[in-house]
Amino acid sequence: MDTEAGAPGAQTPGMPDNLAVSTVRTVEMEGSRTRSEHDLLGYADVPADALWGIHTKRAVANFPITGVPVGHFPELVRALALVKQAAARANRRLGYLAPEKADAIERACALVASEKEYAESFVVDAIQGGAGTSTNMNANEVIANVALRLMGRPLGDYAALHPNDDVNMAQSTNDAYPTALRLAVIFATEPLVRALDDLAYACKGKAVEFADVLKMGRTQLQDAVPMTLGQEFDSFHTTIKEDVARITEIVGLFREVNLGATAIGTGINADPRYAALAVEELSRAAGQPMILASNLIEATSDLGAFVLFSGVLKRVAVKLSKLCNDLRLLSSGPRTGFGEIRLPPVQAGSSIMPGKVNPVIPEVVNQVAFLVIGQDLTVTLCAEGGQLQLNAFEPTIGYCVLSSIRMLTAGVETLTRRCVEGIEADRERCRSLVHGSIGLVTALVPALGYETCSRVARRALAENRPVADLVLEEGLLTDEQLHELLELEAMTRPSRGRKVTKPV
Amino acid sequence: MDTEAGAPGAQTPGMPDNLAVSTVRTVEMEGSRTRSEHDLLGYADVPADALWGIHTKRAVANFPITGVPVGHFPELVRALALVKQAAARANRRLGYLAPEKADAIERACALVASEKEYAESFVVDAIQGGAGTSTNMNANEVIANVALRLMGRPLGDYAALHPNDDVNMAQSTNDAYPTALRLAVIFATEPLVRALDDLAYACKGKAVEFADVLKMGRTQLQDAVPMTLGQEFDSFHTTIKEDVARITEIVGLFREVNLGATAIGTGINADPRYAALAVEELSRAAGQPMILASNLIEATSDLGAFVLFSGVLKRVAVKLSKLCNDLRLLSSGPRTGFGEIRLPPVQAGSSIMPGKVNPVIPEVVNQVAFLVIGQDLTVTLCAEGGQLQLNAFEPTIGYCVLSSIRMLTAGVETLTRRCVEGIEADRERCRSLVHGSIGLVTALVPALGYETCSRVARRALAENRPVADLVLEEGLLTDEQLHELLELEAMTRPSRGRKVTKPV
Amino acid sequence: MDTEAGAPGAQTPGMPDNLAVSTVRTVEMEGSRTRSEHDLLGYADVPADALWGIHTKRAVANFPITGVPVGHFPELVRALALVKQAAARANRRLGYLAPEKADAIERACALVASEKEYAESFVVDAIQGGAGTSTNMNANEVIANVALRLMGRPLGDYAALHPNDDVNMAQSTNDAYPTALRLAVIFATEPLVRALDDLAYACKGKAVEFADVLKMGRTQLQDAVPMTLGQEFDSFHTTIKEDVARITEIVGLFREVNLGATAIGTGINADPRYAALAVEELSRAAGQPMILASNLIEATSDLGAFVLFSGVLKRVAVKLSKLCNDLRLLSSGPRTGFGEIRLPPVQAGSSIMPGKVNPVIPEVVNQVAFLVIGQDLTVTLCAEGGQLQLNAFEPTIGYCVLSSIRMLTAGVETLTRRCVEGIEADRERCRSLVHGSIGLVTALVPALGYETCSRVARRALAENRPVADLVLEEGLLTDEQLHELLELEAMTRPSRGRKVTKPV
Amino acid sequence: MDTEAGAPGAQTPGMPDNLAVSTVRTVEMEGSRTRSEHDLLGYADVPADALWGIHTKRAVANFPITGVPVGHFPELVRALALVKQAAARANRRLGYLAPEKADAIERACALVASEKEYAESFVVDAIQGGAGTSTNMNANEVIANVALRLMGRPLGDYAALHPNDDVNMAQSTNDAYPTALRLAVIFATEPLVRALDDLAYACKGKAVEFADVLKMGRTQLQDAVPMTLGQEFDSFHTTIKEDVARITEIVGLFREVNLGATAIGTGINADPRYAALAVEELSRAAGQPMILASNLIEATSDLGAFVLFSGVLKRVAVKLSKLCNDLRLLSSGPRTGFGEIRLPPVQAGSSIMPGKVNPVIPEVVNQVAFLVIGQDLTVTLCAEGGQLQLNAFEPTIGYCVLSSIRMLTAGVETLTRRCVEGIEADRERCRSLVHGSIGLVTALVPALGYETCSRVARRALAENRPVADLVLEEGLLTDEQLHELLELEAMTRPSRGRKVTKPV
Repeated sequence: MDTEAGAPGAQTPGMPDNLAVSTVRTVEMEGSRTRSEHDLLGYADVPADALWGIHTKRAVANFPITGVPVGHFPELVRALALVKQAAARANRRLGYLAPEKADAIERACALVASEKEYAESFVVDAIQGGAGTSTNMNANEVIANVALRLMGRPLGDYAALHPNDDVNMAQSTNDAYPTALRLAVIFATEPLVRALDDLAYACKGKAVEFADVLKMGRTQLQDAVPMTLGQEFDSFHTTIKEDVARITEIVGLFREVNLGATAIGTGINADPRYAALAVEELSRAAGQPMILASNLIEATSDLGAFVLFSGVLKRVAVKLSKLCNDLRLLSSGPRTGFGEIRLPPVQAGSSIMPGKVNPVIPEVVNQVAFLVIGQDLTVTLCAEGGQLQLNAFEPTIGYCVLSSIRMLTAGVETLTRRCVEGIEADRERCRSLVHGSIGLVTALVPALGYETCSRVARRALAENRPVADLVLEEGLLTDEQLHELLELEAMTRPSRGRKVTKPV
Repeated sequence: MDTEAGAPGAQTPGMPDNLAVSTVRTVEMEGSRTRSEHDLLGYADVPADALWGIHTKRAVANFPITGVPVGHFPELVRALALVKQAAARANRRLGYLAPEKADAIERACALVASEKEYAESFVVDAIQGGAGTSTNMNANEVIANVALRLMGRPLGDYAALHPNDDVNMAQSTNDAYPTALRLAVIFATEPLVRALDDLAYACKGKAVEFADVLKMGRTQLQDAVPMTLGQEFDSFHTTIKEDVARITEIVGLFREVNLGATAIGTGINADPRYAALAVEELSRAAGQPMILASNLIEATSDLGAFVLFSGVLKRVAVKLSKLCNDLRLLSSGPRTGFGEIRLPPVQAGSSIMPGKVNPVIPEVVNQVAFLVIGQDLTVTLCAEGGQLQLNAFEPTIGYCVLSSIRMLTAGVETLTRRCVEGIEADRERCRSLVHGSIGLVTALVPALGYETCSRVARRALAENRPVADLVLEEGLLTDEQLHELLELEAMTRPSRGRKVTKPV
Repeated sequence: MDTEAGAPGAQTPGMPDNLAVSTVRTVEMEGSRTRSEHDLLGYADVPADALWGIHTKRAVANFPITGVPVGHFPELVRALALVKQAAARANRRLGYLAPEKADAIERACALVASEKEYAESFVVDAIQGGAGTSTNMNANEVIANVALRLMGRPLGDYAALHPNDDVNMAQSTNDAYPTALRLAVIFATEPLVRALDDLAYACKGKAVEFADVLKMGRTQLQDAVPMTLGQEFDSFHTTIKEDVARITEIVGLFREVNLGATAIGTGINADPRYAALAVEELSRAAGQPMILASNLIEATSDLGAFVLFSGVLKRVAVKLSKLCNDLRLLSSGPRTGFGEIRLPPVQAGSSIMPGKVNPVIPEVVNQVAFLVIGQDLTVTLCAEGGQLQLNAFEPTIGYCVLSSIRMLTAGVETLTRRCVEGIEADRERCRSLVHGSIGLVTALVPALGYETCSRVARRALAENRPVADLVLEEGLLTDEQLHELLELEAMTRPSRGRKVTKPV
Repeated sequence: MDTEAGAPGAQTPGMPDNLAVSTVRTVEMEGSRTRSEHDLLGYADVPADALWGIHTKRAVANFPITGVPVGHFPELVRALALVKQAAARANRRLGYLAPEKADAIERACALVASEKEYAESFVVDAIQGGAGTSTNMNANEVIANVALRLMGRPLGDYAALHPNDDVNMAQSTNDAYPTALRLAVIFATEPLVRALDDLAYACKGKAVEFADVLKMGRTQLQDAVPMTLGQEFDSFHTTIKEDVARITEIVGLFREVNLGATAIGTGINADPRYAALAVEELSRAAGQPMILASNLIEATSDLGAFVLFSGVLKRVAVKLSKLCNDLRLLSSGPRTGFGEIRLPPVQAGSSIMPGKVNPVIPEVVNQVAFLVIGQDLTVTLCAEGGQLQLNAFEPTIGYCVLSSIRMLTAGVETLTRRCVEGIEADRERCRSLVHGSIGLVTALVPALGYETCSRVARRALAENRPVADLVLEEGLLTDEQLHELLELEAMTRPSRGRKVTKPV
């Protein structure tokens, strides 16, 4: 039986189109030489030089969903190869895998883990049924064929080294795939943390640069009390640094893996020494301290760590979006908005309005945030949909978490380099807004009392005049007293050393 | 067996506490007389004067979730009574229900449907397991006991008239409850539509009032081109009116009901004439044209209409939130924000900042919108969780849709009365922002060309001077020409009758 | 100034990599010839043979977010070209655009709208800041250069025909882009509707095939009353058809467009005759009846139609997910589950468990549904984030809606072809489950009464025996009577013509 | 001015209706004596014996949204009182508050914090505009009046002790309210953790009870390999315990508070010693170690801790929902489902189907989970909507987090007591399903090899016969060998001590 030959979705290997998000996936095989492979359903041809085999071919045909292949996530490819490498080492140490086979598999895994070109052979769609089976099979086939090549054997010569019996030895998709996915998230998080650190550092730089820029603070979009623009950027620094701390803590949950659980966590058919050994080897291969879950049955079906980590990504997204909303508000104008800061122009803003420049970088980060929040919901839905001993929807969880990490990393980097680093303050406007504001009056409360200040505030608003003028006009304070109370230092800190009749 | 006697959650009837969202639900029955009732699980005592019975008692004990009872939704109580009334009429016409019983049930239903006090006997928590069975049982018991009272019989004398055999005759929870819920949504939507119409009308009033207030339009928070404040409020009017149209269309989907489907839609044990007759009677009783679903099996498990209608409520929420965001932006200030409009003050804004008034009404509507969006997600999750011939989560769908409608209605009413109707324009500020803006230059493009305008815009920005001054200074236009181009009419409409060299 | 030359993200045209979702976007330009272009920010080099220009280049560098370019959505490319074509025709008719320029633009638009290769020149990331400005600029540049080629002019010879002044004449991003996006959604919805129709038809085929397969209906996962498997599949048919009806209705909202609104809907600088003319030309070019929004200011900032349509896609997703959940439940087994149907095997299920086949096709459709629900949330967030006269996040709304449509289409097609069409019933198991079930007793209620049936049910459960045996043993019915009551017809329809003492 | 007298929403104090979620909030004041109070907007009457005052009255009228008053959350009332108490102590120690006033306030706070009746005076709707100002004002007024009563003064005698100047001294809503909300979440989490611990303990009890019940494990709803029912319940135990660990960790983030930040975090008008002192007093009063945020400006606007904690609640909800889905699947039947366990019956399931009992307790917990997930989205939306120096939507965040905690606590308690504790295994059915299953064959792979096992599996499926029979019939194993391989111990653990030729 070969119902699948020439099926839609068949692919020639090595073609860039395998990686493409292309609307038309009509890849022809005419003229290409092929080899025949066999599975539960029968025989099918695959291109003679494909590193992947029949299982991959079936899966490509079954899941023509997004056009985004597994190879789009190099961290996952790397992690899969490291898991297979660790398993091979454990199997060799336990005496189940012959040294020459183990050697070939380990070298093949090292290549796949380190050379980018192999990602092109991970052609299965990232969104797939089957709890990751197709991704695992794709990995087994590619590694087997790379190993066969290293052994001087033809591709597809599975009698010499088998994707399933040898590469997948002692594993099930249900332990190998989740372990790889967790490791991939650990890998992918590193550049995100670096990007956030850079953003925090850029905000700190601006905090220092703007330390002496007095401006109005606003609550509920209404004028509140003065602060410095430096304080505002310092709060961005703090808030980003807190996110870095939370990410770093919670990504640690992924160190706990179920390698050795086999089908459902009972470890059926696995040597009882295998699980600990495989995790030890994985830690060594990945250069990451991994630990074996204490309850492998629970660990096989539970995706709580993904839900929580996705929740952290959502938190990062929410805070970035708020930061970008603030940048857009503060730079609104140039003439009819807040106009306290200027964002660096990065492209023309309008074909119809001369001179218009828009805050496109914060805007794109807002949108990244909204995508991440949406994907967090998808992760939630997938996790809730797990049944009994397994969650079939782990591929989509992996897709969402890895693509959210990637989009956040890209968004944060462009925000740092193309926006935050180039922000300038409009010092004059900041200063004049403070001095024209009513909110200034709050700083006079300790000296004049709440009642008097309320009256002055009302009068300033009604007569459209500055508070300071009225205070002097009414002889409430001397020029010197007023000046002292309105000093930047005095207004933007607790009132150290000042004589206050009473607080509030 | 009476495992439930004195169980937590037991309630004395008629107590306002039945309606309460109270943390502590320890309602004692000591001293009260009781009557004994019987069900599948055995015997249990209920208060002697309770209109509800043993099924209700079990459910109250089983579901101590939110403290919000079914009676919190009077539309649902009314709809349940009308469904029971229609069923009784159909059963009488078919000869299954004796006239004296039918009379009593119909009169009881009329009372429950119209007198508010009966809602207090619907004491089961709105969030409950069992696809609405407990709500249906609660209704059967209350109606039976009201009917018994009308017949001069003691409460609980179910031999004379039975909650199940008589009140629930020819019905299953699986058709009676969804039918009632749909009707309840139709009822609840009426005041929402009225509230939105009022809001639209208030916006139109402001559109007329502000028709001559020239202001800057803004895109991406950057100054764009001029418009009138009246145009802005007219767009609010249009957008709300479109929502009214969508709600009115889509609420119509609820007219299709599955009354007569019995357990799973096959109509097992129902007279084949019953379904059509019952729906006809329901239309008459409710004063609403209801129709029988063409596929009762599909109609029994499908909740697509709720998903879609909840999606419409979400759309309304999104648009209200955007409108409120705009109101908060436009009224930001009073000195350091946009300051184009003033919202009426409705309460003091701060204990620490004299004179501060905040946009609390738009803020609360934003929050209503966020609650509605969250509840739409809950509706989605419930709908997705349906299995095979029924959706067990319909009570929560009902809770979310009905409480979203209620919150939206309340939010819209307070927005209209306490905010929109009292909005004032700061005409002087609007005017001066336009004349100081760079965006004004766009209106000169037809006369001066894009290149010249760009140069003038850059110069205005660099020298911090008004565009108009530069145009006159450079002799590009005469005072009269400039005045004509900058007329309100000319800038806020397509350039009818003007000589334009070319459109951009 | 040329800060961007050689910037990361620079692309050579025509390379398949432009379409790729590739991790590494290092496309070199060394050795390539370049041409120089100019914008607000200064000069930059673009590859000499690129159809896109400097605005596109800036945008590619600014938005390295997802690697999914605008060209990934051919419906959007087509719609953009048709909008530009309609604008050119309107401008020619009004006398603003010289016939030779108009000719070239119109022919270029026809090419871009129909030939797939041009999609490769739409290289800006689908997720971008700026409310679609970069997509619009990319379209203007590509069309201008194609037109220049048709005029025999070199690429980049914008003095002869200008992307902005000519191709974008009388348009703003703020009307051209939303109009194109709406038209693109109309285009993209057609194959989705076809796919859903096919799925409904396949379900109807199974409904006919399984019309005589008696099985137990289940509510709340508990045995309820009998039905036929044909009725179950017929309910799938009905539910899908209702979705088709809803999609078809609501996609109609996109026919209302704001073409001619220019910057904010006031139509500034546009000829007052232009808007109506352009929409008329667009209807003709697209072969779709489009209409001009009555309030262009509202139409420019409002995205309610997208929120609602996305809500419809969510509804489709929810119902597909429920259908797939049902298929997975009904096919659970092969030995320890429900086992009423068999899904066609499409790939091997496990490397460790011999013979295991999994329901991978329904599983992938579940995941598509979860992605669509997540993207609906993103649409909601984007819509809520709109401010004042524009929504800056429309590109992400377009991305989500278009990719949701595409995933749904692909998912539905694979579900129809690779799953539903091949479903087989296990007739023997269905029959034996019915006859072993307690639920059968409900069919005897009209003959024996509720009390007797309850007693028999309890006894059957306690003694683990079939209901029918007990009824005969107790002499409650003759064999013939029993047989008649348990006929398929009698149990799966309202009890037409049967003598029933009373319903329920 | 007294525009508010007799306004809708006015309330008489002490009425249980203040706590009610009632549709009709027409509380009359006719006949009641009143006192007059004054604020920024003018004068208004409040009931003479109301503990709340004019600010509360305004807020009740402004926000008639949900009918759920702040007093519905006693943890929040308690926390507000403790914050006010700590502030009073700090102010006394710093010499700003006279000892007799401080005494009265501290005693009043102690009463409000400990006596439930005072919650009835917190009548402002939980959903309100103004960032919590109205809740803070409500607290100030109630505490002031309780203190006045303790001082022997009439209610409303604010000259003697002022809600604002004295009770709110050195505070702003913007620090007092968030601090109280954080403390309230800490309080509310304690019973949730206890409830989860109890559930975990109940699952462990079942794990022990069912340790010897062999059953089939299932992946993707397809028969996989054997396990024990005890292992399954032990995985529930583990998964709940992990949630307890995560909650306990992350609730700790709420210990960091911004008390002393005053309006925007600059500490304007506060004594520089105040913040540290107030937090020290709060720790003492609450019996909880609280710490002062290092960056008070950031801490005043940032709600990251709520987003993250709500994410943890969502994780708990997801896992509870999955657990309940599993319980419903495993108990599906009684005859046509999985039927491995029996849930205790807690109420009758159907009026139409004799003997039907439904899994209503797991169903209600599913719905609680869906509500919590929806509220997590609302929290996200609120957090994202924060602007500049404050988040105006904190009241809704508080509402969602506190009501999610409460619903989860109630849901978990009912799940433990009314479901899990009473679960029984159907040992015979579990055993027979295993022995009839194909999945058994996996346990033979180490002895017979993958190829042979696959063949036997296919034959068993085709001939509908048990695997064991075929193995014996074909003479592949002796009866003794087979028995040994199929022992519970052998199949549900890694294959300790067994001779295996090779794993997998």
